[in-house]
Amino acid sequence: MKNEKFMPNLYVALIHYPVVNKRDEIIASALTNLDLHDISRAAKTYGVKSFYVVTPLADQKILAKKIIAHWTGGAGAVYNPARRSALELIKVKDSITDVAQDIAGLEKSYPKTVATCARRYPDSIGYTEFRDIVKSGTPHLLIFGTAWGLAESTISEADFVLEPITGTTGYNHLSVRSAAAIILDRLLGHGM
Amino acid sequence: MKNEKFMPNLYVALIHYPVVNKRDEIIASALTNLDLHDISRAAKTYGVKSFYVVTPLADQKILAKKIIAHWTGGAGAVYNPARRSALELIKVKDSITDVAQDIAGLEKSYPKTVATCARRYPDSIGYTEFRDIVKSGTPHLLIFGTAWGLAESTISEADFVLEPITGTTGYNHLSVRSAAAIILDRLLGHGM
Repeated sequence: MKNEKFMPNLYVALIHYPVVNKRDEIIASALTNLDLHDISRAAKTYGVKSFYVVTPLADQKILAKKIIAHWTGGAGAVYNPARRSALELIKVKDSITDVAQDIAGLEKSYPKTVATCARRYPDSIGYTEFRDIVKSGTPHLLIFGTAWGLAESTISEADFVLEPITGTTGYNHLSVRSAAAIILDRLLGHGM
Repeated sequence: MKNEKFMPNLYVALIHYPVVNKRDEIIASALTNLDLHDISRAAKTYGVKSFYVVTPLADQKILAKKIIAHWTGGAGAVYNPARRSALELIKVKDSITDVAQDIAGLEKSYPKTVATCARRYPDSIGYTEFRDIVKSGTPHLLIFGTAWGLAESTISEADFVLEPITGTTGYNHLSVRSAAAIILDRLLGHGM
């Protein structure tokens, strides 16, 4: 398998609000420490430019920044430099709007947004199609939801919805950490 | 993308001993709760028959069984049946030898073992090759290491070593949760 060095113009966001709970009610979820580690490491592996952790909650933003500081500037950075270079990709933002503005400031154009969801939508785009779109070089923001997934409003406002990951069994309850890893590999793995 | 229902004759093991630490010394690692959740959910998604959590440490076996019991028979099973059906795939064993014997009891033949590693070996097999091997229907055991990875002895005793996951950047420090998800998707995803 060849492994050409293609650097995608891709950003990733992990949303903690607005997401839904088990009863499909809008909630703000709590941060999960390993989401930050696992998704930043996958983002680093596949050349994602930044990994945005999105929460409007003040205490959760403090927690996120504390975790990041430990691994990028604290004892963790000395102990594990590989972890440092992954967690350095993380930026903490209040909302998807703030993320899009941050990217626009860097790229001089707003990113196209791509929502991910375990359900299939009539106009979902496939992985091959999205690979081609990413190859175009225009900035794209891939959006993942915590808890029971992204709020319907976020999905309907996105420019694209990516088709769900299907395995071999019909079971579709991957963790967001696993889903993010698989999606990045499908889009950017195998020497794209 | 088509999604034929192919049920692989595949087992997964997550090893906590013998694995290596940062200084390449043999250690027994502690259990990580989310390893059990994430890898069992990925295993369930891709039709893996059992997910073995391997540790010889008595307290760690008790901890593993406590986590599994909570989600398969306790309050967690009622709260989240999807989690229940994933964690029901987990079996706790002392060693890879015990895992192989358990599989032999079920399959009437010992599984071929496939070690995973972030380093490339001269005789590593690729994903396409391993897909074809899995399609043969003979039982295979895919082995993942916690901490800094499997001990050299486990890798050299395995029937096959799978080539490492390469992204686009040369960074090869995925979590074992992410690596397991990506490898299962590469082997069994896309309607194999």
